[in-house]
Order: sequence, then C-alpha cells, then structure tokens
Amino acid sequence: MDRLEALRKLLPGKVETSQAERRRHGRDEGYPEEGEVLAVVYPEGVEDVRKALLWAREHQVAVIPFGAGTSLEGALLPLGEAISLDLSRMNRLLEVRPQDFLCVVEPGLTRKALNEALKGTGLFFPVDPGADASLGGMAATNASGTTTVRYGGMRQNVLALQVVLANGEVLELGRGVRKTSAGYDLKDLFIGSEGTLGVITRLTLRLHPLPEHVHTLRVFFPGVEEAAEASYRVMATGLPVARLELLDELALKALNQHLGAGFPERPALFLEFHASTREALEAESALALELMREAGALEVEAAKREEERKRQWEARHQAYWALVHLFPGHRFVITDTAVPLSRLPEAVRYAQALLREMGLTGNVLGHVGDGNFHTLVPVLPEEYPKAEAFAEKLVKKALELGGTCTAEHGVGLRKRKYLPLEHGPALDWMRHLKALFDPQGLLNPGKVL
Amino acid sequence: MDRLEALRKLLPGKVETSQAERRRHGRDEGYPEEGEVLAVVYPEGVEDVRKALLWAREHQVAVIPFGAGTSLEGALLPLGEAISLDLSRMNRLLEVRPQDFLCVVEPGLTRKALNEALKGTGLFFPVDPGADASLGGMAATNASGTTTVRYGGMRQNVLALQVVLANGEVLELGRGVRKTSAGYDLKDLFIGSEGTLGVITRLTLRLHPLPEHVHTLRVFFPGVEEAAEASYRVMATGLPVARLELLDELALKALNQHLGAGFPERPALFLEFHASTREALEAESALALELMREAGALEVEAAKREEERKRQWEARHQAYWALVHLFPGHRFVITDTAVPLSRLPEAVRYAQALLREMGLTGNVLGHVGDGNFHTLVPVLPEEYPKAEAFAEKLVKKALELGGTCTAEHGVGLRKRKYLPLEHGPALDWMRHLKALFDPQGLLNPGKVL
Repeated sequence: MDRLEALRKLLPGKVETSQAERRRHGRDEGYPEEGEVLAVVYPEGVEDVRKALLWAREHQVAVIPFGAGTSLEGALLPLGEAISLDLSRMNRLLEVRPQDFLCVVEPGLTRKALNEALKGTGLFFPVDPGADASLGGMAATNASGTTTVRYGGMRQNVLALQVVLANGEVLELGRGVRKTSAGYDLKDLFIGSEGTLGVITRLTLRLHPLPEHVHTLRVFFPGVEEAAEASYRVMATGLPVARLELLDELALKALNQHLGAGFPERPALFLEFHASTREALEAESALALELMREAGALEVEAAKREEERKRQWEARHQAYWALVHLFPGHRFVITDTAVPLSRLPEAVRYAQALLREMGLTGNVLGHVGDGNFHTLVPVLPEEYPKAEAFAEKLVKKALELGGTCTAEHGVGLRKRKYLPLEHGPALDWMRHLKALFDPQGLLNPGKVL
Repeated sequence: MDRLEALRKLLPGKVETSQAERRRHGRDEGYPEEGEVLAVVYPEGVEDVRKALLWAREHQVAVIPFGAGTSLEGALLPLGEAISLDLSRMNRLLEVRPQDFLCVVEPGLTRKALNEALKGTGLFFPVDPGADASLGGMAATNASGTTTVRYGGMRQNVLALQVVLANGEVLELGRGVRKTSAGYDLKDLFIGSEGTLGVITRLTLRLHPLPEHVHTLRVFFPGVEEAAEASYRVMATGLPVARLELLDELALKALNQHLGAGFPERPALFLEFHASTREALEAESALALELMREAGALEVEAAKREEERKRQWEARHQAYWALVHLFPGHRFVITDTAVPLSRLPEAVRYAQALLREMGLTGNVLGHVGDGNFHTLVPVLPEEYPKAEAFAEKLVKKALELGGTCTAEHGVGLRKRKYLPLEHGPALDWMRHLKALFDPQGLLNPGKVL
C-alpha cells in the first residue's frame, strides 16, 4: 500500500489530492513563489491531527499547518515533500464563558466568525490583522492589528493552548486565568512559532467588553512628522486610545481612487476612542483634538454613526486591495518593521525617501501606537528584486534603530535571513528548541529558523 | 588553592563569607526552612556574573541568584552546596527614554527606587507586588500586583532581557519595541523561570504615563459574594479600573488594630480609577458607584487627596505586616491561587469555610480583577503543618476550578508538588528545557521543577 493510500485509510474522507487543492495549499497571500503539497488533510479533531502527525513521522513527510491561507511571508510554501494540515473543519466555538471573559475555540475558526458568534454577549475578541485569518494561524504568527495599542496582540489575548507535538503527544499549555507564575511559559513559546514546534488544536481566548461609547476620527497633517508628534502627545497623556493608525498621502490617494472615498490626500491619523460613559468619551476626544491641533493638525473629520465608523475601518483594511486594484498585473512587497516609538518618524521618512531614490512607488500604513508600519510596494514582476532590495534596506534600518524585522506578520521564509542580525547568539538557542521539540525536522521545515 | 580562595581571586572585593551574610542569603521572607550558602558573590556587571558562573561550573557548585530577598516560596534556600549571586550592586538605572516609554535597568534596582528616579519624566513603572522587590527578581518570578488589572504584570512590561546562561554565554532576548513576531519567544521563557535557566543581568522595561486624574475608593459590602458581583459589573462595563482589591472583614480588622485605621469591618473593595481628564474620571467613578450600589454596596468612602490615597494603598500593602504584628511568635502561610474570574466567590467562600473547619484564622486579600487572592494564615510553629494542609486543599480546589497554584509568587520549593497536576505532560517538556539550558543542573537546582 502506498503512503497516500495509507493516509486515506487512516483518515477516510479527510484527505484531498486534487491538483487544485494541492496547489491552493502550497502558497500564501504574500510570498512570490508557489508550490504544491503531496496531499491536504482536513482533520476534524485532535485525534485526526495526531494520526496525521504519526503518519508523517512514519513516512518522513513534512507537515505544514494551514489556517485560512492569509499569511504573507511564505510560511505555507512546501520546500520538499509535505502534506498540508488544513484546520478549517476544526472551526467550532467550543465554549463561551462571559463571566470569565473568555472563550474556547478550535484553531480553524476565523476571527470574524468568532465575533459574529459573540454577538449578544456584550464581549468581543479584539485582535484584527485585517484579513479574516483563522485564530490558530493568528496565534501561530503572533498576529496583532489596529486595536493592539489598547488590547494587545495574540500573546496577550491567548490564555491557553492545546498543541500536538511531532511525536503525537498532546500538551495543554497555560490556564484559563489572567495570571500565573507556575513554571516555564511554554504557551508563549508556541505563539509565534509558525507551526514549527507543534500544531495548535485548541485556544482559550481572552474576551473584552464591547465599548459602550466609541468616537472615531480622521485627522490630517501637513507631514508625517506632525502626525507622529500628535500620536506621541496622545499616548503620553494616557488617553484610552483604541486605534491609532497612520496613513500617508499615497495610501489615501489609493483609497480615494479605489473606493471613491474623498479623503484629503495628506498624512493622516485614523483614531478611535473607547469609553464606558458618554461624558468620558467627549472629554477625552476633546483633549485628544486639542493635543493634535497643537501638534499641527490641519483638518478633522469625525465618523459619528456606526455606519460611518465601519466604513472608515473597512477603508483602512482595504488599503492593500486598493493597491492591487490600481496596479493590475503587479506584485506586492509588504514590509512589517517596528521601531521604538520615538524613531517612527525617522523610519517612515527613510522609507519614503528610499522609495523615491529607487524609483519605486509605495504606500505607508502604520500602527503608529505600536511603532509598527507597513510599506506596500507594487512592482511589475521583473522589478520584484528591486522591491525586495528596498525591503531589505528598510529592515536593516529598523534593526539599526533598535527595531524588529517583523512586528506581526511572522518570519516565514522571507525574514529568516534577518534573524541572525536581530537575535545574535540567541538564535542558536531557538534552533536548539526546534531540535528538542521536532528532532526529525518534520514540522513546517525551513520556516522561521 | 581552595575553591573559595579562587573565587575571591577572580572577584576581589566582591565575595563575602561571614556567617551573617551566608545565612541572610539562605532564606526568604515566606518559606519556613532556612539554610546557609557557601559564599555570597556581589557582581558589579555582566562580566562578574559570567566569571561567577564559570567558576561554579568548574567547581560544580550551584548558583542561586538573589535580588532583594523578598520572595516567599523558598526560591532562595540552598538544597546543597551553593553560592548566592547577590545582584544588589547591579542597581543602576542605565537609560530612560521617555519618548519610547521605556527604560533600561540593572536587575538589582528595586521598583521603588526606579519610580523615585522616574519622577519628573511623567512616567512610571506600574508593577507593584507590595514588597520593594528588585526588578530582576520580579521578572524571575513573573511578579504582578494591585495594578495588574490595568497595566499587566512583569511579562507584559518587560520588553527585553539580557541573561547569562550556565555556560557563560550572554544572550539578548526580545527588543525594545512593543510588538515583534521575529522567532521564538525566549524572553518570556526566562520570565518566571526563577533563576533556573539563566541569570538576568539587564531589563528593558515598558513605562506608562502617570495618570493625570486619580480617584480612589473604598466600598463595603454585606458579603464577599456581593463584592465579587460588584467587581464583575465594573469590569464588564469596560471601566478603566486601575486597581480592584478585595479585603475580607478579618483583613480590615487586622488593619484597624495595627494601624488604627477605623475601616468598617466588612468585606470591601479598594478601587482606583485612572483617567486623563477630570470629566472622564467623574463620569466613570459615578458609573462605577452606581454599579456597585446595584450589586449591594453598603458604604462608600472616597480618598480625595493624594495623601489619603497613599495611606489607603499603604494600608493594603501593610496587610501582611499587620498580621505579623498581631500574631507575635507566629509563622505565616500565604496562599496565592488564581481562578477564572467567575469562580472567585466560590474559591473565597471555600477558603473561609475551610479555615473555620480546620480551626485556623486567616485573612483574605484579593486582586479580584485578576481572579487572584491570597489567604494569610498565622499559626504557632507547631501548627504549621495544619496551615500547610489548608494551603494544599485550597490549591487543589483552585486547580479543580480551572485555576493555578501560583498567580504571582512563583513556584520555588513550595509549589513544586502541584505542577504535575497543573501541567500534566507539559511538565516533562519544562524539564527538557531545563536540561537544555542547564545540563549540569547548577542554576538554582531543585526549584520550580
């Protein structure tokens, strides 16, 4: 019996080998190369995951966990013979415990489906990377997003994980409590490990009360400098800002062309405040406006109704698709550096100047409250190496400024080369950990390290 | 040349061997047994720490890192031949970068000294375990405290660490940025490892803006149940509560006797709200009061002036010393369980009933916003085993409720026996990690695992 036959016997009705499926699982949304896996396994529970991993060990075939396929750095590309472990059938919301502010989910559930299911509980899960990613995938890359400045990213919002190791062992990591000092923090070791240490099969997530009162603003500035200064002043005052996003003039131009949005085409902050009383919200928004005017704000637009707020954030999340639409036939390089907060203006200026100097165009979008910004660079296929050279220079600048090569997209294949510079000798110890948990190197090999 | 002679030669002026020093470093503030180390080394920089570790390896002597000596679970007790590595001379504030909301410190700096030094910057370091612990020690036990409900504990507030491994290697873990997905999270592996994986020699800490407006309250309830319900309502509304502490009637009685404080002797919440505008503060405090009255609050006392606020929190932190004062000649067992938020009333009732049933007295003090509470049990030396039996039952109850045996005090020696129950097979993997980083078992041996 050949090995795929054995796999089908082991997991009847859960193995797909059509070329379409094998190709769809050999790529992600941001990496230029594409591959093809041997087969796609659709586990329906932890026991299926164990079976697939034990099969993989027996036949020495690599395993690549797959959530929603929205990753950007090449984490899903097979480098040799590999099966894809598509967790989309494990998408149940297992438990909601509103009085504990937590829920328990399977890894294939997406963040939007979760928030839909939470309607009526008064709670929500705040991490929003833009894409409707799976929660398991978001934990695997330590994803974050526009609300991280207030609510934290995945690391702060995953209380516990169930994982299956390469040897088939099932571990429970962390507890459904807000604090623990009981031993080594394995939960956080698996968050951000991109499927290279084990497969996440269950997550206990922290939920937050839906804000009673929300105020959403768009504030426009003469330059990025002034916008960054305004952000700093807002944060230094301890205002409870829930979102604090920087968009440069080109990003707004792309949104105007794509959505007909009519935004002023100047560097902007998109902000949101959450509060539990109307008076608090009004006082805080007023103070924020005053601080931003002092920092040089030119125009302010408030999104008063729910509908308009939604449109604003939908527009923010459309920034990538706006470019795709405006640049048909192009490829896109998306950078994801973060720097210490005070160095953000310098890093953004550097990126903008470098784009001009290299004859590239590109939009800057920043989670400015976290010191994290993305540059979206559309290029024709033959210019891709130039865009990659730009990205490399930007990473090196970010590292020079004390920053990181990847704030929220993960390492995948693309960022591996920067880890020696970022971590120095600590990288060897990451390799030791990999060898400990996956001695045969079967879990998403060649990624991260 | 004998080994201590060699150590003195290696680190002239930095080795103490008087019996007083050797004894002072062989104990902590909460564990009943006391020991004696071979010698105390006072490193003055990372190179001294390396030298001490290499000496220890050469002579196969254990090394126990020592911060301020305020730990409670036996983490400092030598189980065999060991030197103490007292980091109190490494107590410099190396760098403050207000615009990055961070600072860089040596591990021996205490949290109070740090906040003293930060005066004038408009920023503070929020983690407050009560004792004036060293920041390195706080990271080593993943400490937290009264403000964790708002600002997080050490894990959320340490951005990066420098550590020295048993083999003398110096690693830099994490970066001075708010977000990173660049590889495995070694920083959080070392936080909470209680000196068993390496010695922390530098910390990059996140700082927060000092609140512009503060409102501090004491609210009294007919029972613990009502106080817990009030806490839940406050948290469910998303109010920006910065402190949310439960004290039972016995705790208040002890404080009244010790400090002459005149508090009503009923279950109480001590609360604090932080806001950036007066209007926000007033509206939020009013809403909180309304919610607490609905939940059955009987009396409310507001601490209006800075002086009175300080007294309130000083009283909270004095709860342990009040008992020490009231029960001369007694020993104290302090429990540190956390449970999912909704199970807190049940856990507290269980603790109170069990104390009565076992003929013990004890105060309950809770970081109720985190589901974490302490029971302080004074006993005569001959009754110590009974108090330990109480603590064991309470831990088992907490684990049954989905909780943890130690929320913020760490494992040390006392909690080791509970880890198999709390972690199951994951504990073996913690042991593998220990063997990887410290193959000769020289770093604080016998602790945690």
